[in-house]
Amino acid sequence: MRRGFAPEEYQARVRAAQSGMAAAGLGALLLTTEPEIRYFTGFLTRFWESPSRPWFLILPATGDPVAVIPLIGAPLMARTGLRDIRTWAAPDPEDDGVSLLAETLREIGGPVGVPSGPESHLRMPLADFERVKQASALVFRDDAGIMAGLRAVKSEAEIVKIAHICGIAARAFDRVGEIAQPGVPLSAVFRDFQRLLLEEGTDWVPYIAGGAGPLGYADVISPAGEVPLAMGDVLMLDTGAVWDGYFCDYDRNFAIGRATAEQSAAHARLIEATQAGEEAARAGATASDVWQAMARITGSDETSGRLGHGLGMQLTEGLSLTAKDHSILTPGMVITLEPGVELAPGLIMVHEENIVIREGRAQRLSRFAASNLPVI
Amino acid sequence: MRRGFAPEEYQARVRAAQSGMAAAGLGALLLTTEPEIRYFTGFLTRFWESPSRPWFLILPATGDPVAVIPLIGAPLMARTGLRDIRTWAAPDPEDDGVSLLAETLREIGGPVGVPSGPESHLRMPLADFERVKQASALVFRDDAGIMAGLRAVKSEAEIVKIAHICGIAARAFDRVGEIAQPGVPLSAVFRDFQRLLLEEGTDWVPYIAGGAGPLGYADVISPAGEVPLAMGDVLMLDTGAVWDGYFCDYDRNFAIGRATAEQSAAHARLIEATQAGEEAARAGATASDVWQAMARITGSDETSGRLGHGLGMQLTEGLSLTAKDHSILTPGMVITLEPGVELAPGLIMVHEENIVIREGRAQRLSRFAASNLPVI
Repeated sequence: MRRGFAPEEYQARVRAAQSGMAAAGLGALLLTTEPEIRYFTGFLTRFWESPSRPWFLILPATGDPVAVIPLIGAPLMARTGLRDIRTWAAPDPEDDGVSLLAETLREIGGPVGVPSGPESHLRMPLADFERVKQASALVFRDDAGIMAGLRAVKSEAEIVKIAHICGIAARAFDRVGEIAQPGVPLSAVFRDFQRLLLEEGTDWVPYIAGGAGPLGYADVISPAGEVPLAMGDVLMLDTGAVWDGYFCDYDRNFAIGRATAEQSAAHARLIEATQAGEEAARAGATASDVWQAMARITGSDETSGRLGHGLGMQLTEGLSLTAKDHSILTPGMVITLEPGVELAPGLIMVHEENIVIREGRAQRLSRFAASNLPVI
Repeated sequence: MRRGFAPEEYQARVRAAQSGMAAAGLGALLLTTEPEIRYFTGFLTRFWESPSRPWFLILPATGDPVAVIPLIGAPLMARTGLRDIRTWAAPDPEDDGVSLLAETLREIGGPVGVPSGPESHLRMPLADFERVKQASALVFRDDAGIMAGLRAVKSEAEIVKIAHICGIAARAFDRVGEIAQPGVPLSAVFRDFQRLLLEEGTDWVPYIAGGAGPLGYADVISPAGEVPLAMGDVLMLDTGAVWDGYFCDYDRNFAIGRATAEQSAAHARLIEATQAGEEAARAGATASDVWQAMARITGSDETSGRLGHGLGMQLTEGLSLTAKDHSILTPGMVITLEPGVELAPGLIMVHEENIVIREGRAQRLSRFAASNLPVI
């Protein structure tokens, strides 16, 4: 598997953004977050974990992007092929890139579009953003949804990477029997499952979740506790693993030692719902159509939370499979199907798979689970 | 090791913040990021990896914090002991918490302080922030540095957690000889080092960095490549591991097979600089004093980047060891000492340890490396 993308991929992304900018009357796009900057440059580093330095990429109306970044990032940014890289010695308590950014924006010209819609945030101090606005004397507004629109539809080269990490996770899921037995606390299972993902080839594991219990689990976001697995529990593991900057996000349920009739029936219903979602997930359908196809089987309502979402450079991105999301599915969109059922008040089971929207039927990126709840 | 904190710890944090709010004339603090919300509640989840939902915590001038969060987080937030938890079914494309947040803020009253200084960001869409400002009709301003000031000084209970994760990383560093030999690509070393950290007890590994080469490495933020380690390389591994939400951040250098005289001399100089930094890192000294003590030995200047930083709930937080940072060291501040030397143009070696500022000499949290460059 080749890492990175051909230069033509980045050029196509830049051209597509600039075409959107022309339509929206924007002179520049100002980008501050990891996926936004990586999308146009391939700048890939785990250093974003440090909040101490802001990073900026500016997309002009024509021509190549301009990076305004901390000096520490210059060697890596230069290796992306980007030519216009302006740096300062960050962190600088007196002027942490504000003057350099304002000057660069003035040179490029406005209006400046900043991603401001759902899922976006501005990764720089608010006080410095105000200073940049003042110092540049340009008009700032939202990005007219350009970034979200571009990122929602994946190229074939992106889809290959997501399929690759789905395959890595599949091999780790196949080995869960090695690490999960009665008596093992969930915290150890979480730790060991991350180890299995690494052994099978993931670069890192930004996200893991799960739960266990005889009647399902209370939620899917809590950290693992020290309660040991018991015979008759259902164990769910969900990942969040990354290869070359692209995520998989799907889960598996396992019965510990034996499966009850209730657990098996719930699992079969989840698989049935997933397949109904897959069937409904066709180009031209809406996110809410897919939600409805699954909700009909699981009995979910609008308070049950979404039953899937977009996926790619981030664990979750783009549309939500909810009653209210009327986004139209387009070939190249990668989404998760994530139905859930309640086994007892406040206790749930969930299941999740990853697909890509195609003309006609969707294509599976994760190897879909069988209807039978596996016993380990 | 006990996870979490006693309720009194959170109560003390809230009281300290409210005392700062009274001095600054703030009616509420509005918090949106993971460490800010966790600081007052203990709300710990890896779910922040998903950008799809905003989360809010409001600290009133008196009384307990109020959470305004997506429904999916209610069970976990309830387990923190927080009583006032208001939820909505996020993500909602029509009103993603905006009305609920504005209404809650109106009830609590302003002026509303929002962290706006160095290292902060607002984790919500800019367009929704504007809507909240409009709908609440309150005055919004910065938080007068309250959050940064509080978080810079760690409690004894926090320091114990950082010492614990430093110890876990020490055991993983002791085992690097198992995974790093000539012929092994750096990408495999990175993957296996994360596995060692998990085996030794880390909860997860948000950050790893490193480099290798006969004359050091070009930078310390690039992802690992496929070039195999060779006899005579220096290998550096740096981590970013977490236990119960607290980070260690220190590194180790290893000579592969044999060490050259230049490598050994550089390593000895780094250790000497670290010790000089440790000696200078006393309560009442400034960050720049510590920088100077190390820079004198390494020959660093203002373009060399910082030689250490604060550490805690984030990989880096708080002060920077630079010429320009005149922050005063206070007992309870946890910092890294991270000198670097250049071995050849553009090629560096770095070393890093973790300490906590005390009355008198600092206390070591990582087990300091010896002067001799270890050969594996």
